[in-house]
Amino acid sequence: MKLEHNQKLLFIGDSITDCDRAKPEGEGLFQALGNGYVAIIDGLLQSTYPELGIRVVNKGISGNTVKDLQMRWQEDVLNQHPDWLVVMIGINDVWRQFDTPTIPEKHVYLEQYEKIYRELIEQTKPKVKQIVLMTPYYIEANMNDPMRAKMDEYGQVVKRLADEYQAIFVDTQQAFNDLLEHVYPATIAWDRVHPDHTGHTIIAKAFLRAIDFAW
Amino acid sequence: MKLEHNQKLLFIGDSITDCDRAKPEGEGLFQALGNGYVAIIDGLLQSTYPELGIRVVNKGISGNTVKDLQMRWQEDVLNQHPDWLVVMIGINDVWRQFDTPTIPEKHVYLEQYEKIYRELIEQTKPKVKQIVLMTPYYIEANMNDPMRAKMDEYGQVVKRLADEYQAIFVDTQQAFNDLLEHVYPATIAWDRVHPDHTGHTIIAKAFLRAIDFAW
Amino acid sequence: MKLEHNQKLLFIGDSITDCDRAKPEGEGLFQALGNGYVAIIDGLLQSTYPELGIRVVNKGISGNTVKDLQMRWQEDVLNQHPDWLVVMIGINDVWRQFDTPTIPEKHVYLEQYEKIYRELIEQTKPKVKQIVLMTPYYIEANMNDPMRAKMDEYGQVVKRLADEYQAIFVDTQQAFNDLLEHVYPATIAWDRVHPDHTGHTIIAKAFLRAIDFAW
Amino acid sequence: MKLEHNQKLLFIGDSITDCDRAKPEGEGLFQALGNGYVAIIDGLLQSTYPELGIRVVNKGISGNTVKDLQMRWQEDVLNQHPDWLVVMIGINDVWRQFDTPTIPEKHVYLEQYEKIYRELIEQTKPKVKQIVLMTPYYIEANMNDPMRAKMDEYGQVVKRLADEYQAIFVDTQQAFNDLLEHVYPATIAWDRVHPDHTGHTIIAKAFLRAIDFAW
Amino acid sequence: MKLEHNQKLLFIGDSITDCDRAKPEGEGLFQALGNGYVAIIDGLLQSTYPELGIRVVNKGISGNTVKDLQMRWQEDVLNQHPDWLVVMIGINDVWRQFDTPTIPEKHVYLEQYEKIYRELIEQTKPKVKQIVLMTPYYIEANMNDPMRAKMDEYGQVVKRLADEYQAIFVDTQQAFNDLLEHVYPATIAWDRVHPDHTGHTIIAKAFLRAIDFAW
Amino acid sequence: MKLEHNQKLLFIGDSITDCDRAKPEGEGLFQALGNGYVAIIDGLLQSTYPELGIRVVNKGISGNTVKDLQMRWQEDVLNQHPDWLVVMIGINDVWRQFDTPTIPEKHVYLEQYEKIYRELIEQTKPKVKQIVLMTPYYIEANMNDPMRAKMDEYGQVVKRLADEYQAIFVDTQQAFNDLLEHVYPATIAWDRVHPDHTGHTIIAKAFLRAIDFAW
Amino acid sequence: MKLEHNQKLLFIGDSITDCDRAKPEGEGLFQALGNGYVAIIDGLLQSTYPELGIRVVNKGISGNTVKDLQMRWQEDVLNQHPDWLVVMIGINDVWRQFDTPTIPEKHVYLEQYEKIYRELIEQTKPKVKQIVLMTPYYIEANMNDPMRAKMDEYGQVVKRLADEYQAIFVDTQQAFNDLLEHVYPATIAWDRVHPDHTGHTIIAKAFLRAIDFAW
Amino acid sequence: MKLEHNQKLLFIGDSITDCDRAKPEGEGLFQALGNGYVAIIDGLLQSTYPELGIRVVNKGISGNTVKDLQMRWQEDVLNQHPDWLVVMIGINDVWRQFDTPTIPEKHVYLEQYEKIYRELIEQTKPKVKQIVLMTPYYIEANMNDPMRAKMDEYGQVVKRLADEYQAIFVDTQQAFNDLLEHVYPATIAWDRVHPDHTGHTIIAKAFLRAIDFAW
Repeated sequence: MKLEHNQKLLFIGDSITDCDRAKPEGEGLFQALGNGYVAIIDGLLQSTYPELGIRVVNKGISGNTVKDLQMRWQEDVLNQHPDWLVVMIGINDVWRQFDTPTIPEKHVYLEQYEKIYRELIEQTKPKVKQIVLMTPYYIEANMNDPMRAKMDEYGQVVKRLADEYQAIFVDTQQAFNDLLEHVYPATIAWDRVHPDHTGHTIIAKAFLRAIDFAW
Repeated sequence: MKLEHNQKLLFIGDSITDCDRAKPEGEGLFQALGNGYVAIIDGLLQSTYPELGIRVVNKGISGNTVKDLQMRWQEDVLNQHPDWLVVMIGINDVWRQFDTPTIPEKHVYLEQYEKIYRELIEQTKPKVKQIVLMTPYYIEANMNDPMRAKMDEYGQVVKRLADEYQAIFVDTQQAFNDLLEHVYPATIAWDRVHPDHTGHTIIAKAFLRAIDFAW
Repeated sequence: MKLEHNQKLLFIGDSITDCDRAKPEGEGLFQALGNGYVAIIDGLLQSTYPELGIRVVNKGISGNTVKDLQMRWQEDVLNQHPDWLVVMIGINDVWRQFDTPTIPEKHVYLEQYEKIYRELIEQTKPKVKQIVLMTPYYIEANMNDPMRAKMDEYGQVVKRLADEYQAIFVDTQQAFNDLLEHVYPATIAWDRVHPDHTGHTIIAKAFLRAIDFAW
Repeated sequence: MKLEHNQKLLFIGDSITDCDRAKPEGEGLFQALGNGYVAIIDGLLQSTYPELGIRVVNKGISGNTVKDLQMRWQEDVLNQHPDWLVVMIGINDVWRQFDTPTIPEKHVYLEQYEKIYRELIEQTKPKVKQIVLMTPYYIEANMNDPMRAKMDEYGQVVKRLADEYQAIFVDTQQAFNDLLEHVYPATIAWDRVHPDHTGHTIIAKAFLRAIDFAW
Repeated sequence: MKLEHNQKLLFIGDSITDCDRAKPEGEGLFQALGNGYVAIIDGLLQSTYPELGIRVVNKGISGNTVKDLQMRWQEDVLNQHPDWLVVMIGINDVWRQFDTPTIPEKHVYLEQYEKIYRELIEQTKPKVKQIVLMTPYYIEANMNDPMRAKMDEYGQVVKRLADEYQAIFVDTQQAFNDLLEHVYPATIAWDRVHPDHTGHTIIAKAFLRAIDFAW
Repeated sequence: MKLEHNQKLLFIGDSITDCDRAKPEGEGLFQALGNGYVAIIDGLLQSTYPELGIRVVNKGISGNTVKDLQMRWQEDVLNQHPDWLVVMIGINDVWRQFDTPTIPEKHVYLEQYEKIYRELIEQTKPKVKQIVLMTPYYIEANMNDPMRAKMDEYGQVVKRLADEYQAIFVDTQQAFNDLLEHVYPATIAWDRVHPDHTGHTIIAKAFLRAIDFAW
Repeated sequence: MKLEHNQKLLFIGDSITDCDRAKPEGEGLFQALGNGYVAIIDGLLQSTYPELGIRVVNKGISGNTVKDLQMRWQEDVLNQHPDWLVVMIGINDVWRQFDTPTIPEKHVYLEQYEKIYRELIEQTKPKVKQIVLMTPYYIEANMNDPMRAKMDEYGQVVKRLADEYQAIFVDTQQAFNDLLEHVYPATIAWDRVHPDHTGHTIIAKAFLRAIDFAW
Repeated sequence: MKLEHNQKLLFIGDSITDCDRAKPEGEGLFQALGNGYVAIIDGLLQSTYPELGIRVVNKGISGNTVKDLQMRWQEDVLNQHPDWLVVMIGINDVWRQFDTPTIPEKHVYLEQYEKIYRELIEQTKPKVKQIVLMTPYYIEANMNDPMRAKMDEYGQVVKRLADEYQAIFVDTQQAFNDLLEHVYPATIAWDRVHPDHTGHTIIAKAFLRAIDFAW
């Protein structure tokens, strides 16, 4: 597995990452990691590699877009000095264009998304050992659905950035696509965004596969 | 308008109808009609025809299927002696097949849906002046979406029953379809089922149009 | 209809406008517009003209008088850059003279009401496309009732200002007067001020009629 | 004063009497008498005649009409064996005709009001030393207001019954009329029914005057 | 009666005065005067002299000693510009000597009590029309009880200050003494300090008697 | 010490015993013994004699008189099969005569107190190894205080019963009397009944002394 | 993997199983399976084998011993007609002997544990396709710790029963033992019983390994 | 006994000391001392030596380490001017090394512990009459348990500091060790740290024995 002894692994993102984590710190006793995919990953890491002493920190905040990450990047990423940084952002950047179309201040369009995202990576890359970029997703099988199509564009930006900066790439959308061959989206998430425990497990497994986790 | 002086208009259905109405009675002071389409209809009726003294009663209960309606039909419909009965049921009958596919006890399949629905109409028709049947709906533009397609089948049953029993027919699915030419479903309802105030207004307008309400 | 594509429509006022809206922003997801006449107007606008993309903002605050509006005008009106501004204020200016007669600091007498109201219009008129002025009201049929009589004087100020500044004028008092020919005030509002859903629908309809809304 | 040593004085009525009294018993420690006119009367009685040991019991229940009193009369009046019985009922009997005009089951019309009231008095008179009948009231100065006019009719029934059965008569409506020569109803009660502490003091004083209380 | 048209009457003191009044203002709608003797006085004043328009303000704060009053005197008394000022303070000054004897910082001994109290009167007397000084009290019949005896000393200071500065003097201790000839303290107050409604009525009556209130 | 290996020690009484114990069982994990003298006794017993395995059960219920104990004696004492039974009852029997003097149904007069108490002892004595009777008390130094004097009479009944039935006698009143030579009652209990932790420790020590507890 | 298409898998046990599951049903929407090992297993099953449609039901209840299971076995196991039954019970049977040693009614000693457990298996075996028995555990590395030693005895009973009845055996104690070679118990569970997410993952993995789950 | 007339005794520490004490002050009415060993000590002191007027102050704060004490030492110790200072700190310093091993910022290692502790004593010793140092503890009988062994090292630091600075030394670990010869740790504390009332009594007794308290 790619994670090494005593490394610090920091996750940042939106409500999918947040999942009621402890604030402001996002680590420690009493479900400090929340109840989403970060906790599942931590549970699997600690139970499988207890000898490694991996330190997991959750810095997700519900409702965040890449613009919100930018505003708290110094405090919540750089000041934390992680060895690994994992980012999953973009769902709200897209979703606000569809659920509140008349409020453009809340939208983050594709160009701005890529620009800010790139800046964040550039200022961070020299300071961490490894970056993992996870695509945003939309749990909808119909690729012609306008929001799914738009989300795919954002996911392609993430893929391109991962390629460019040699980051580990995790395609969460693809992971959900595989599931949707067997179940309808509402089984996992009424709103196609906030998944149940199965959906969080899917995200966790996609991440763990990408870091060569050995079950 | 088809409603006449002093008539009693009773709505029955699921969470779309319920909307936090007063229980058990569903009429009276203090937002007793809830905050959904029933309240909008009442507000428009009372403000436009204050001289008619229409009495509106809301008997929706969240989560109900047509099987649940059957169990409380005597108490909540027949014992109330309405002049008009309005029914909107079927969303949960379908939804449970998609969000909890492994629990068949919670599913109401098409044949059973029609059979129970028909029985309810037959025992009620002789006792009321008018029956209005509103289709269940799914706020999804893609007609090939499996749940939308299934919901349409249930809507066709409702249409057929309305024709057979000379009930007034309200096609709520069609009303949402018209809207979806301009807005994405998530603008109205993240889960494509529980609409915001705009969505409830669409249902209310579809009903009012069907009874020749004059703005 | 007078509203045009992508226009921003901002409502400001007291508890009748507020109705538990989201704060501080007063727009967005999750019933952000409250549950009063602003939400009814929005529901009817969005369901009837989904293609227009009208943006509705609610900046009402319970208990406000015109003096309170003045204090937050820069922040809550001018900084918002609305295309349309709708004002309904004055009920508390009058009511406090009747319910707490010994506390003059809470009263806004007629002359001061007109003076402040005029200043607000003057500084706003050059910056918006349209202003709508709605009268304060008192749901009491007896024109000789002292508080009704006083409220009518404030309503006449509003009418005069609307005339002077070519604002659209909405006579909410007259709208309630029409209703009171058929129902007693307590049917709509025990306190003759805070209406039920029917009363809010009456305000909404008076506004919509004034902007040539086509049902 | 008419009350004598160790007598038990029981009040029964609606929300004006109830005022958050202890239930089911309505006497004892910790504000068991509520915070309305019953508590004011008790405070003035106990502070002025501490040597008498008067026992005051509050059996008011919010929302009650004379039909509700009838249903609990055996339990809440006769089984209590009061020496004095004080009744104030009728506001809801009238109010429901005005605030929910379409729900006739909640109305108690004049004839039925008198018939039930008379039966209650007849079965009680032989068992108590004294009965006090207080009129229902409506804090509205305009005698032509429909609800005020209707309430006056109910008050006249109470007066007639008091005359017929030699009960002490307390004209609470007249007591409020005197006040309304100086203050507007909203100073006492926004809804013209549930008074503030001043209004409750007016009821208390009207009662105490009728029993020759010496300040 | 000594109070005149439109006068403002301000009460300041501890929990006996406070009684859950509105804060910070202590006047206005919705039981702003609390539920103790201030509300009883207001209710009797407004119901008996509605034509006078007396304005009553409650500035009591639970737990206060004369030292606490001193710290908020400018804000809560002088800045309010009352016509009449009513002070009842001293219970906590004494009580803390008995219930927390080991914490001398919370005690206000007799000399300091008189000194601060005198300063407050001197800076206020030129600015108000009338001052009323009410003794602190202890609802205990046994004059040799150490706390009762101590409280009497503080009451004597109040009496002396009232004499010196021509203030109206209200002997609340004496009012309770009269009651205690007939009832045991626990009937009025388990803790001999916080009275029930009867006890608050006794304080109110003592005040009203001192200002020649005519029932 | 008189308690022996594995004995079960059951306390029954009123709020002094109850102190928020677990219900219905009154033993077990999580402060099941409440936070009063029973918990203090248990803490001292278990910490001093951990080898004995004493089982302590708390069956106090707030507000109880000896009449209430009688009604639940079979369930809460006899069915529990204690080795030792400790009873402290009587405070409410007396207190109600003083705090609610007009409600005689709540009083338990001396004769009835003794009669019921005697019956309880007689039916229990053959079934337990040891009975401990603790006097009710009133934390008031003045022996002429009417409630203290009355409480002493009840305490004398307890003493007499203890003598008659060879029960261990614990004079809690005397224990408090000793304390009152040094501190004022309000230091321990504002209401002279519900003591602070010091007061509960006094009761605990009086009990432990009576059973020859060795510190 | 041993689980087959459409099979129903029912878990029963104590708080470790319960983990705030929905009651009474223990399956369905909204985290109905709780947040412990049952939810982790379900998440891994559904995400890995979405095509199988496995139905998972959680019937754990906090605090249960094998005696409690016996009382609800008909209702919560047999009436549910599971294909697979998974049992983890015994922690409270042992724990109560150590945390409340003086209350023997709450203890379930080894012999009774085995006897009841055996009866439950015998009446169930003919009715289900597969039984899985999981040992109770204590997260303590010291095998000489009295409670760990006792828990091991109960675990050996479970092993013996699994052997006897050809049930699948899951040694949760051993799974924790492996972990404890690397981390101290308090990292997983302050009380050595209720584990964090890592501990629940260990239980889940032990179960999944036993059924040949393929990651 | 070593405590003298009117001395002030201040306790500082972590959650064991805190026990829900009043904040910020930690003394006064209404269980201000919390419900742990400080309250037990106060209860025993006040009930046994009421004539001394000992003043007890609780400045414990949950979760504190010696580093946290250092940050609030000026405010919470020196500014309080105690005669006696009692310190019990170190449990969290050790515990965090075992329950959150990957977060070294929360650990206080032995050397730093001793260094800070020594500084606190040195700056305080000249200003107080007596210092009492209580060891941290872990309620675990197995001396080879890693956390117990570590806690013992911290206890030895405390012992050494007490010797060096002539402080009174209280060996709480030894007190618990004595108990553990008879009962299992879980009887006192599931987590081996936060004791029940018996455990707090053990701490209290160890302290009282050290100051020659005479029962």
